[in-house]
Amino acid sequence: MCLPEPIALDGGAVLDTVEVAYTCYGQLNAARNNAILVCHALTGDHFMAETHPVTGKPGWWANIVGSGKPLNTDHYAIFCINVLGGCLGTLGPTSINPASGEIYGLDFPVITINDIVKVQHALMQYRGIPCWHAVVGGSMGAMQVLSWATHWPDKLRVAVPIAGAVRHSAQNIAFHEVGRQAIMADPDWCAGKYLSQNTKPKRGLAVARMAAHVTYLSEECLHEKFGRHLQDRDSLTYGFDADFRVESYLRHQGKSFVQRFDANSYLYLTRAMDYFDIEAEFGSLDTALRGRDVKYCVIAFTSDWLFPISESRVLVKALNRVGAEVSFSAIETNCGHDAFLLDLPPFADMLRGFIAGIAR
Amino acid sequence: MCLPEPIALDGGAVLDTVEVAYTCYGQLNAARNNAILVCHALTGDHFMAETHPVTGKPGWWANIVGSGKPLNTDHYAIFCINVLGGCLGTLGPTSINPASGEIYGLDFPVITINDIVKVQHALMQYRGIPCWHAVVGGSMGAMQVLSWATHWPDKLRVAVPIAGAVRHSAQNIAFHEVGRQAIMADPDWCAGKYLSQNTKPKRGLAVARMAAHVTYLSEECLHEKFGRHLQDRDSLTYGFDADFRVESYLRHQGKSFVQRFDANSYLYLTRAMDYFDIEAEFGSLDTALRGRDVKYCVIAFTSDWLFPISESRVLVKALNRVGAEVSFSAIETNCGHDAFLLDLPPFADMLRGFIAGIAR
Repeated sequence: MCLPEPIALDGGAVLDTVEVAYTCYGQLNAARNNAILVCHALTGDHFMAETHPVTGKPGWWANIVGSGKPLNTDHYAIFCINVLGGCLGTLGPTSINPASGEIYGLDFPVITINDIVKVQHALMQYRGIPCWHAVVGGSMGAMQVLSWATHWPDKLRVAVPIAGAVRHSAQNIAFHEVGRQAIMADPDWCAGKYLSQNTKPKRGLAVARMAAHVTYLSEECLHEKFGRHLQDRDSLTYGFDADFRVESYLRHQGKSFVQRFDANSYLYLTRAMDYFDIEAEFGSLDTALRGRDVKYCVIAFTSDWLFPISESRVLVKALNRVGAEVSFSAIETNCGHDAFLLDLPPFADMLRGFIAGIAR
Repeated sequence: MCLPEPIALDGGAVLDTVEVAYTCYGQLNAARNNAILVCHALTGDHFMAETHPVTGKPGWWANIVGSGKPLNTDHYAIFCINVLGGCLGTLGPTSINPASGEIYGLDFPVITINDIVKVQHALMQYRGIPCWHAVVGGSMGAMQVLSWATHWPDKLRVAVPIAGAVRHSAQNIAFHEVGRQAIMADPDWCAGKYLSQNTKPKRGLAVARMAAHVTYLSEECLHEKFGRHLQDRDSLTYGFDADFRVESYLRHQGKSFVQRFDANSYLYLTRAMDYFDIEAEFGSLDTALRGRDVKYCVIAFTSDWLFPISESRVLVKALNRVGAEVSFSAIETNCGHDAFLLDLPPFADMLRGFIAGIAR
């Protein structure tokens, strides 16, 4: 659908025509008070609980969202909105710029997490939803949850930031910058105009994905999954082929990613994450969080080193300081940051229990 | 100098003509028993304690090696040998292949850490040194130390592996593979033949360096050094320039690295590190370490996440199991893996004390 009103961005630009792609699983009730918003992560999309149209794989939260599942479609209408700046239906750098009639590319304005949330808020109004029962999201999704809870606290009852942080750290920015530089180093990036030149910076985007992917897994998980096992061979080849299984896995991750994701979207969304810092935005964390009538369920994973538990603790401590209602769960797992995407019973049970408890 | 004998490599190839570049600080005594070998790291070189001929900067261990310093040139002759496969004088992929008269490029054979040590051993014989007083090295240097101590235990009295491991982990291999893929993704890499085509894969090598550099520093150190500080600006630009100081720093690291290092050398040396695994080589760690008359001083840094302290502990435990003489120092620092390159008094004092103690 196309939003009825323009969106004014944090950076000063105004987007007049904003196409939004979203999914809704379950039915809105008559009072429209049973809606849950799930905010997807950097390379996620709104095909959360259905077969992905490009990859043919199950939705990224198919184990969490559905009938009888932790986010139960028998009771809730569960929305997921492709983020602004994305590449699967919502306005982004692959869209046509109405001002020029050309594909936006780098003429697309740089956006923030708040801008992404403004679009979600406009869709919420369009669908006549007065208040989300819960806003839930992992990683970049957790940033959107915090943006909702601080900017639109009367529009949600419950905030569930998972594997997140109140700001992107120097190390987070550094890894994103490596990815951006890998994309921009690819001559096929063409200063962002690759689509109009019928090409794509596949190699650069694949390298960006590989670098990021290592940060999504823990050292222990990589060791358990791959160790130093060789790939389809009995001994070292003394060459630069993928001798090790972990190399083969990473190359596959890179190659499959470029089939489903746009390089410029990767630039814009990593930038939005880098810019995220609610402490700087509000002057202090306490100011950002104080006096908002939002319940929190903060979830983090013990082996996540990209958004370590300590980052979630910073949020929880600030929530405690301002007297907010907060429960904090550190889920024991060796799966690293990507744990929120896996079929992890302790995590699923936590989410199920919290959502059900709030309803009571 | 050119080695008098060919070097037979682990991979089966034989290098007939091996040019070796090295430095020696201090004087060999008459008995030639005061020699210390320092093994340099992946992107290090033999200009350890003198102005670097390319960068004009002080040697990478100028604070450790010299008169009155922890590795004291008043008492010891301290050698550093540019590694086989390197790009600053010793035979490597930038050298001329005598078989073809062309630059080796990818025709250079894939080498191992043991091959690097074989060259060092040949130089040791050439210089008439019967036994190193100590072999010392950090990171890839620590791997060389372990290769010495397991393959040539009668050729050294003391082994000082710093910030190392007994094998490259899956995560280590993964990060190296990202770097290699970044280099190979650069069209200017020309399948390794870039030098004969008068070009260099500068962008790919810079990305490889940036990705690696993040792993050399701890999250805490990045936060302390850069935090979310902006670079030469008062506010976010809403663009893809280096808004953040950490981005600017990384870009600089990438750019300056390509001035002094060769992309193919980077491929070969990362590969040699990936292949390193003394457990696999000897069947078990205990077999690798048992019955060798070598004293160990194992040093690791608390905030090193690339070669975490736990990796050094694996080595120390095995040494304890086989009854070897070993001291283990976990140096408290937030500087991460690169701590061994910094002017860190607790580390320098440890090294000084250990080397002096052994001499007594």
